Amino acid sequence: STSTEAIRATLFPGDGIGPEIAESVKQVINVAGVPIEWEEHYVGTEVDPRTQSFLTWESLESVRRNKVGLKGPMATPIGKGHRSLNLTLRKELGLYANVRPCNSLPGYKTRYDDVNLVTIRENTEGEYSGLEHQVVKGVVESLKIITRQASLRVAEYAFHYAKANGRERVSAIHKANIMRKTDGLFLQCCREVAAKYPEIKYEEVVIDNCCMELVKDPGTYDVLVMPNLYGDIISDLSAGLIGGLGLTPSCNIGEGGICLAEAVHGSAPDISGKNLANPTALMLSAVMMLRHLRFNDQADRIHNAILRTIADGKYRTADLGGKSSTSDYTKAVCGHI
Amino acid sequence: STSTEAIRATLFPGDGIGPEIAESVKQVINVAGVPIEWEEHYVGTEVDPRTQSFLTWESLESVRRNKVGLKGPMATPIGKGHRSLNLTLRKELGLYANVRPCNSLPGYKTRYDDVNLVTIRENTEGEYSGLEHQVVKGVVESLKIITRQASLRVAEYAFHYAKANGRERVSAIHKANIMRKTDGLFLQCCREVAAKYPEIKYEEVVIDNCCMELVKDPGTYDVLVMPNLYGDIISDLSAGLIGGLGLTPSCNIGEGGICLAEAVHGSAPDISGKNLANPTALMLSAVMMLRHLRFNDQADRIHNAILRTIADGKYRTADLGGKSSTSDYTKAVCGHI
Ligand SMILES: CC(C)[C@H](C(=O)O)[C@@H](O)C(=O)O
Ligand SMILES: CC(C)[C@H](C(=O)O)[C@@H](O)C(=O)O
Repeated sequence: STSTEAIRATLFPGDGIGPEIAESVKQVINVAGVPIEWEEHYVGTEVDPRTQSFLTWESLESVRRNKVGLKGPMATPIGKGHRSLNLTLRKELGLYANVRPCNSLPGYKTRYDDVNLVTIRENTEGEYSGLEHQVVKGVVESLKIITRQASLRVAEYAFHYAKANGRERVSAIHKANIMRKTDGLFLQCCREVAAKYPEIKYEEVVIDNCCMELVKDPGTYDVLVMPNLYGDIISDLSAGLIGGLGLTPSCNIGEGGICLAEAVHGSAPDISGKNLANPTALMLSAVMMLRHLRFNDQADRIHNAILRTIADGKYRTADLGGKSSTSDYTKAVCGHI
Repeated sequence: STSTEAIRATLFPGDGIGPEIAESVKQVINVAGVPIEWEEHYVGTEVDPRTQSFLTWESLESVRRNKVGLKGPMATPIGKGHRSLNLTLRKELGLYANVRPCNSLPGYKTRYDDVNLVTIRENTEGEYSGLEHQVVKGVVESLKIITRQASLRVAEYAFHYAKANGRERVSAIHKANIMRKTDGLFLQCCREVAAKYPEIKYEEVVIDNCCMELVKDPGTYDVLVMPNLYGDIISDLSAGLIGGLGLTPSCNIGEGGICLAEAVHGSAPDISGKNLANPTALMLSAVMMLRHLRFNDQADRIHNAILRTIADGKYRTADLGGKSSTSDYTKAVCGHI
């Protein structure tokens, strides 16, 4: 849609620095003139029995209804017998693909300057099944579950994404030389989908080898698709190549066309409320959300404004070695839109 | 032992380039004056029913008897219904810890110059259990098994190693926020052992975060200990930081005090027999074997000769961008001993 009728989108500012960086995002989206009406939902202080977590059922209903949302960091207090907020979201909303583009930022120097890849992670099963038990004392097991349905779905998404974004190659990451059946099924599904996209190159890379190549020569990778845990690992590794989670956007694709963009960094309680947080990852995630809504012009303008502000180097938050406050950095980005 | 009585050690030259690089190692050990008598065993051409692999029972008996050995690359033909050679070795010899020191090589430039870490990988269980099955059509599962016994054993080894080698810190790598029971048990074992080594710092790092930190700032890591698959991934990633598997040594510690050093790179069939292979990883692995045998002087001399040859840069094999043959490079190393 490019009409001016307002689009309703859910906003989970999240914990810690979440509310501050969400404020920044609202500002830049405003300045870019995107008519978004936010439905804000805060992480609760009591466990909702329907979600078994601090995330309320109403929050989830909001995303289900709007089909689009933006999420800040959510810290899950450990060992309280309730579900992780992030896992609750993935499960309840059927967020089957986590998409993380990872591009070297001109102007923010790291050891790498040619990273231009996208990790697409299966987000619902695999090593995250939650199925674990003690067999006998001193012997425990976890189940990794791979299904044809979830593997096909994420593979379809990866190839669809590659084609829609002018990408040339999809690499399926696996350890099928060891987990022949589970990762073997995942690969088989990728191959079936690959056969329907003759214009996209397809390859299979063992995860250990992939990690070695990523640190030696990340420029050789394009789109990577993989089971849950490998995605967790490789997306963070890739983020590290360009400067860390404070600079990398992410977006989750869910059942029924849901798109939930999210910053995957932590809630940084130590600097929360001090106007020191870096809102870049959440801004870039919002850009992904805008592209999903086909506000491509506005997305481009915000994206370029962020890149320019970072390249300028005058307004940088402390995590990037600068001295800017969150609000000054945000103002600078707004100024470039 | 520093006597001149010959030590019997098993040698598996392995496949592909294995015999050539094993030849180089024999030469440098000879020149350094270490009295090793090699018992050579080749990978078979027929499956031995007792090992279910191309590795013969006699070869395994040789290591069990000598308690020390050196192994080149072994390629496992895929999908022939027999066991992987590497897994057979780990299983039959109870190789419970895989130790891979990873140090930036002065003179061989990569993006990193301050890598000085050691990965210690549990090598017998975890995601490598081999237990997998189809639950119903389209649904498969793999079992990850973590035992108190194997976790304690590798943790003990890691702390022992740290202390014996003047290391300051052991980091246990895990994903216990997701796999609470399996990785949780692994961590609990590490904590128990850590309590016995108050002089060694102990920390726990989530694997995704660890990979990100390794690419951003590997200099912050010292000794890392972890379950099987994480070790597979992180040891290759670390090798990538300093130039790849052609430059990184490895050694396996097994039941009854076995030490089996090995080059973990592939058998490179494309260049095999052409006098082009890089014997560095196998030479450095042999150095680890010599230290295990307490030929510390000779180990130092060989190690320094390798470093000097690489730093010189005059004799480098093709994989490092040079034009040297295996034998010229080996001669250069011998010249520096
Ligand atoms: C916080 C944690 C449960 C989560 C995960 O493992 O998926 C995080 O690492 C991520 O990548 O979103
Ligand atoms: C070849 C393969 C089975 C092996 C493993 O996964 O352990 C290799 O990657 C290694 O690290 O030795």
